[in-house]
Amino acid sequence: MGKEKVAIIGSGNWGSAIARLAGLNVSKHTDVFDDSRVPIWVFEEDFEGKKLTEIINESHENKKYLPGIQLPENVVAIPDLEEAVKDATALVFVMPHQFLAKTLDILDGKVNKNAKAITLIKGVEVKGADIHIFADVIEKRLGISTSALSGANIANEVAKDTFSETTVGYRTEEDGKLWQKLFQTPNFKVQLIDDVAGVSLCGALKNIVAVAAGFVDGLGYGDNSKAAIMRIGLLEMKHFCQEFFDNVKEESFLQESSGVADVITSCLGGRNKRVAEAFVKEKKPFDELEKKMLNGQKLQGIHTAKDVHVFLKERDRIGAYPLFDKVYQISWEDLPVAKLTEGL
Amino acid sequence: MGKEKVAIIGSGNWGSAIARLAGLNVSKHTDVFDDSRVPIWVFEEDFEGKKLTEIINESHENKKYLPGIQLPENVVAIPDLEEAVKDATALVFVMPHQFLAKTLDILDGKVNKNAKAITLIKGVEVKGADIHIFADVIEKRLGISTSALSGANIANEVAKDTFSETTVGYRTEEDGKLWQKLFQTPNFKVQLIDDVAGVSLCGALKNIVAVAAGFVDGLGYGDNSKAAIMRIGLLEMKHFCQEFFDNVKEESFLQESSGVADVITSCLGGRNKRVAEAFVKEKKPFDELEKKMLNGQKLQGIHTAKDVHVFLKERDRIGAYPLFDKVYQISWEDLPVAKLTEGL
Repeated sequence: MGKEKVAIIGSGNWGSAIARLAGLNVSKHTDVFDDSRVPIWVFEEDFEGKKLTEIINESHENKKYLPGIQLPENVVAIPDLEEAVKDATALVFVMPHQFLAKTLDILDGKVNKNAKAITLIKGVEVKGADIHIFADVIEKRLGISTSALSGANIANEVAKDTFSETTVGYRTEEDGKLWQKLFQTPNFKVQLIDDVAGVSLCGALKNIVAVAAGFVDGLGYGDNSKAAIMRIGLLEMKHFCQEFFDNVKEESFLQESSGVADVITSCLGGRNKRVAEAFVKEKKPFDELEKKMLNGQKLQGIHTAKDVHVFLKERDRIGAYPLFDKVYQISWEDLPVAKLTEGL
Repeated sequence: MGKEKVAIIGSGNWGSAIARLAGLNVSKHTDVFDDSRVPIWVFEEDFEGKKLTEIINESHENKKYLPGIQLPENVVAIPDLEEAVKDATALVFVMPHQFLAKTLDILDGKVNKNAKAITLIKGVEVKGADIHIFADVIEKRLGISTSALSGANIANEVAKDTFSETTVGYRTEEDGKLWQKLFQTPNFKVQLIDDVAGVSLCGALKNIVAVAAGFVDGLGYGDNSKAAIMRIGLLEMKHFCQEFFDNVKEESFLQESSGVADVITSCLGGRNKRVAEAFVKEKKPFDELEKKMLNGQKLQGIHTAKDVHVFLKERDRIGAYPLFDKVYQISWEDLPVAKLTEGL
């Protein structure tokens, strides 16, 4: 058996933080990994008059998306996707979800059939009454075993090496151990669980809960209400996944970093919480706040709430998820935000 | 069957907040409760030149412990404990734990044998290798069925009627329904669970976790670390109760307001979190901070950590609870706080 060759597909804030860990571990575990280098695919753009790949490869810092953090020298930025994944046996998908489809179009047929993948992409793909996690989308398209990683992971904090945890939902135990080897450090604890769907869905659905928490903060209701909303949201997440996916494990929600801990982190800070709070306090529409506060990027939580609403409507199950429905109605149907807790 | 006669034993911040709910519900559910009045036992003291019972009975406000909140007129302050509980069939214990023993001495033999009780007292009684919840202490001493209530309940927020939840661990389902009738309002949701021990222990052990969260904030580690500590703490709470108590339900910790939600509230704000944060930032000993920040009152979390340490040492089980042990060692044994996350 040859050694594993890693490729990181995506180089934003989280992609750069995780590339740092991968670079360190590939050099450390030379029995498992090819230690020559960790290619990281970078969507080429100019930054301060220079190409971003050049900046990364010369300064070993992603000055645009993770400034101030030194990357190991074996992390090599590559602007060509096919070249970045050439011969790779361990693919790490870490990019905004809207770029995944195009990325898979390019990769289709060009990936080693014995490779395995892991996705760190947040979100789900909803088409009417169908819902798919990205691990399944990748696995189906490329024909390779795909796990998922999600947890209470603010990228900048992981990059600064403060104590953090995360959860890998693995497809096979062997895959799980490989991903743990690639990412775990003394201050970044990787827990393993046999539940790709649960871990993936936590990462998507927690953003709805974070929007609700932002509403509570905007209303000035206090910590009792906020904790209640987080608790109810966590249970709706669990309930949703148990209803619509097979073999989901309760622990992914109630005991793992992917569930309870990520809900906490997302509801304490994070963009979903902050923008939802501003929505209540500033009384401005979400598209205006997205422009102002997120540089025009979309606010994930309200879009996931809409996707989930469409899906639940098709399945005639809206009533079983009152908090998700409240977030949808407040965000998209002009329900007054003061109605949030009514009837929960 | 006669109607239930309620008595509230204790009139601090939480006692006054809960007396307000009881007063409202006794008037509302006249089929179940005697609606003439809700006696609340008040440890008599002078406040602003007047007796506290007189202030409460004239102004219908506990100006010392819950200022600014109107109490229903049927809540009547009584300075004599025996008189307050006379003929009562539903006793609500809500006082600092250090006053319970003396209170039980007075009540012993004077309580209706068909009465039932509920305790809202936080803490546990540890004597070497023995540990007891207060519901058991009350039940054994007075010979009456005793439930427990605990949840994400900052008293001032409950008093102001913002959306909150709580959990009643009941001794019998009938008792549970009675306590729900006494406390539940549209904005104060009472969940019932058949687990007196789990609910009681949550209320005691969460303070240790809140101290750990305060240490994290003092260290400036950020939200990933804080969420990780809260998650680990919640699991140690559950593990502890499952190891040392019979018939504890996992849900009390992972799904109920008593568990996950109260851990959240306590770690967001609350005195344990705040004083522990100051311990790190101001580098002053806890007894000095207790004097300065708590008016000389004891910080529950560090004392519970010590009780739990003594108990676990007797049982030779310290190693199974690394976070509890770290809180103990940092608080009482001069372990540097930066060691908090090491080896977790």
